[in-house]
Amino acid sequence: MAVYTEVSDEDVHAFAAQYDLGNVLSCKGIAEGVENSNFLLVTDRGPFILTLYERRVNPDDLPFFLGLMDHLAGRGLSCPQPVAGRDGVPLRELCGRPAVIVTFLAGMWPRRILPEHCAQLGRGMAQLHLAGEGFSLSRRNALSVDGWRPLFEASRARADEVRPGLADILAAELDHLETNWPRDGLPVGIIHADLFPDNVFFRDNALSGLIDFYFACNDLLAYDVAICLNAWCFEADGAFNVTKARMLLDGYEKVRPLGTAERAALPLLARGSAIRFLLTRLYDWLNTPAGAMVKRKDPLEYLHKLRFHQHIRTLNDYGI
Amino acid sequence: MAVYTEVSDEDVHAFAAQYDLGNVLSCKGIAEGVENSNFLLVTDRGPFILTLYERRVNPDDLPFFLGLMDHLAGRGLSCPQPVAGRDGVPLRELCGRPAVIVTFLAGMWPRRILPEHCAQLGRGMAQLHLAGEGFSLSRRNALSVDGWRPLFEASRARADEVRPGLADILAAELDHLETNWPRDGLPVGIIHADLFPDNVFFRDNALSGLIDFYFACNDLLAYDVAICLNAWCFEADGAFNVTKARMLLDGYEKVRPLGTAERAALPLLARGSAIRFLLTRLYDWLNTPAGAMVKRKDPLEYLHKLRFHQHIRTLNDYGI
Repeated sequence: MAVYTEVSDEDVHAFAAQYDLGNVLSCKGIAEGVENSNFLLVTDRGPFILTLYERRVNPDDLPFFLGLMDHLAGRGLSCPQPVAGRDGVPLRELCGRPAVIVTFLAGMWPRRILPEHCAQLGRGMAQLHLAGEGFSLSRRNALSVDGWRPLFEASRARADEVRPGLADILAAELDHLETNWPRDGLPVGIIHADLFPDNVFFRDNALSGLIDFYFACNDLLAYDVAICLNAWCFEADGAFNVTKARMLLDGYEKVRPLGTAERAALPLLARGSAIRFLLTRLYDWLNTPAGAMVKRKDPLEYLHKLRFHQHIRTLNDYGI
Repeated sequence: MAVYTEVSDEDVHAFAAQYDLGNVLSCKGIAEGVENSNFLLVTDRGPFILTLYERRVNPDDLPFFLGLMDHLAGRGLSCPQPVAGRDGVPLRELCGRPAVIVTFLAGMWPRRILPEHCAQLGRGMAQLHLAGEGFSLSRRNALSVDGWRPLFEASRARADEVRPGLADILAAELDHLETNWPRDGLPVGIIHADLFPDNVFFRDNALSGLIDFYFACNDLLAYDVAICLNAWCFEADGAFNVTKARMLLDGYEKVRPLGTAERAALPLLARGSAIRFLLTRLYDWLNTPAGAMVKRKDPLEYLHKLRFHQHIRTLNDYGI
């Protein structure tokens, strides 16, 4: 649950007056999202989303994120689209923060993942990868292989507070990943990099759109697939659901077939994805005050996932 | 910020299918409200509010609250109105909790209180008091004079943790209030009993409606006025704003003039209102775990207000 900035009614009205959106009927903070403050803005032209970017987002990245949403929507992908004010500018300031109004996307994210969701996610992610082609801006993935060691060092001394032996496990895994990471040869492009279920909307079990492009970057396309294997295909009890994985990969390949090298790299990419979320969660776990109004996510969930991928012998284990 | 119950997309669709509301486009938790879980439900017929009643609301009171909103709306007051399903019933169950859909009320609550807001609040509150006449159900105010001592006893032993001497101050004040409370003779009726700024919506500084009737009850009408003097007329630095109080009282009396006895009782009622919120905040302060995802409200804000009213000599001090 996240609304970090309180926005007054006067502020909202003055802000909305810069747009052709009709009269503001209401503006309510949404209890979703972790990084930014989000409001559902209802005007007599319908609902919109007002986002205030909080400190975790680098303002220099905003032209990339907003431009990407426009580019993707222009190529037919269903995603929120920044709304320009009367001056033609979508990005302005509200309450001292960069702020933007984006179009409202119908749908809800699935609380209980069905295999069919995974099939549609696979198709939608591949469509995103194709739609990203030709986007003129680029953004390095700060949370890919080169970013993990600094993140690890920031938590190393206290990692064993979370689980005895964790620091050693992470050090060994990082060595392995840094040595074997496929730095060349695999297809690269725009990836979402955070396609967790709460960023994928469905209506009547049909995918209605993707949201939250604030980790999007240029990286290995198959790495996005690996992130989704971790985020969508494990059950709450830790079991890997091979059916979901197969449907995710099948759905993806119906739109964009994976190359031989991409397939071969999947277990390693999945290990990388697991350590990426393990490390950020570990850092947040150790650095979030107990009284903070934010629910900390369990880093050990991703230790379990990491171990699963360490033992993958053939792609059959992913259902292919 | 409050969403206590996670509602799945399947649950929302199955729930909404019992109503004639068209297709559900979205359902997002609202980061407002403390007692219940509230969602902004957008269907192709527009926005609605979905409320799940959490443990603090007694289910036996719900027919009173829902019936009251219907009664008030029927008498022309702008407030949310429960929406009945196709079976004619507005109250049903969702995720194991009593749940209701109510109409959407345009407007936003004022973050910065202007004197004009107080004038409109006064008028709106008096309209509510008149509109409540003839409502067939009744509900005792459990948080009026007879409820304060049990609440005090529940916190007495630890009250001085919040401020040394607080237990003695409260005991003396309770003695005074119990002895002098006007149990007879003042006009009674339906009061809102929680008309804080976040329960009063404005559009372009015109009052657009009242919400959150979940403390409404039968009590002294002037007690509602006293609650508002405390909730609307003190500045953040603790200063009492006589202009706001005068405009609030003037606005009220344009619709429903206060009687002589009501005017004379106002300082005492304001002391009662101060101790009511002081005691509930004190209880919550002492019993809310530090890590809870709820912002505790400072009980001492109401100690300050109590002391102000203890020193009122004439109604001129309220701007009358």
